[in-house]
Amino acid sequence: VDNLEVIRRQIAFIAEVDKLKSVLRRSSPIGCERRENSAKHSWQVALSAIILCEHANESVDLMKVVKMLCIHDVVEIDVGDTFHYDKVGSADLFQREEAAARRIFGMLDDPLRSELLSLWHEFEARETAEARYAAAVDRLMAIIMNSNNNGGNWPASDITLEKIVLNNRHMADGARGLWEVAQMMAQECCEKGFIRER
Amino acid sequence: VDNLEVIRRQIAFIAEVDKLKSVLRRSSPIGCERRENSAKHSWQVALSAIILCEHANESVDLMKVVKMLCIHDVVEIDVGDTFHYDKVGSADLFQREEAAARRIFGMLDDPLRSELLSLWHEFEARETAEARYAAAVDRLMAIIMNSNNNGGNWPASDITLEKIVLNNRHMADGARGLWEVAQMMAQECCEKGFIRER
Repeated sequence: VDNLEVIRRQIAFIAEVDKLKSVLRRSSPIGCERRENSAKHSWQVALSAIILCEHANESVDLMKVVKMLCIHDVVEIDVGDTFHYDKVGSADLFQREEAAARRIFGMLDDPLRSELLSLWHEFEARETAEARYAAAVDRLMAIIMNSNNNGGNWPASDITLEKIVLNNRHMADGARGLWEVAQMMAQECCEKGFIRER
Repeated sequence: VDNLEVIRRQIAFIAEVDKLKSVLRRSSPIGCERRENSAKHSWQVALSAIILCEHANESVDLMKVVKMLCIHDVVEIDVGDTFHYDKVGSADLFQREEAAARRIFGMLDDPLRSELLSLWHEFEARETAEARYAAAVDRLMAIIMNSNNNGGNWPASDITLEKIVLNNRHMADGARGLWEVAQMMAQECCEKGFIRER
């Protein structure tokens, strides 16, 4: 009976994070006008981390990476999606996101609660091999989506090749090869005239 | 340079499975009228497998389970989503899904191609502890969504409590506790008058 109560609370958590399906992101799926939501992004980035694992700079615990990526966006349920290029200077964003993480993962019992909260912090801090690789794959997603979508949300947001390189260069800390390809894709977007160089 | 070509092919695969974001499912997110898509479902079921892992009947390799769940629906890109209750009797569905799996995973190089194709078959065959647990969590999702949504798509599809129990009882092979809670949730739906008993 205790066990059924534990399951009930875990299901309440799953029903709560179901709200992530309604959070809209800035980027659109390839070939679509409509904006994509954060739940789909979370699936795609987790699958991509599995596919691209051999390109991590250091050997990583893939399960830890995938857990991080499955939960990294749930704080958006409370805080909303923040455009990557607006994050610099958004001083209280981390505080608001952390409060959201405490509320949402707080619905679970320990040890899960602590494990997920700690993984969320680890992803944000980008100080371990797993977090650096996860961050590289997360950023690669936006570049794949926009490159395959005639520049996607970049032109409307006045994002130039220079800004892309400047704001995503931390990808190299997690996966040098992925960053190299990401730059090639952004460069091609520039050559095709979808984005300006600077 | 070889490495960059490998990455380019893996990115082409990621861009291809991006199409899963457009495949609609029969069930709706909690509190929403619109139908949900398969990419969001894939994220939710992978996260749920992580959260509920302690309830698997046998000890499972969680990474294998999560990989299975991240890829189990990509065949829908070619085949579309099939309502669980229509699957019985759909004789050529497996053949069409397998052809889709061969085409889609065939975009990758070995060993990834073989690994993912084999995981897809393992999930479908439900003969290992991982596949049985993954199937239990997959079925639990529909029951959570519909129970939290006033019966969701069940009434319109003429799904009764009896049918739910009959069609999902294999959940007990993967996770007895989850099946017990799933039955309680369906029973509650029946008591509230959202679905008929038989």
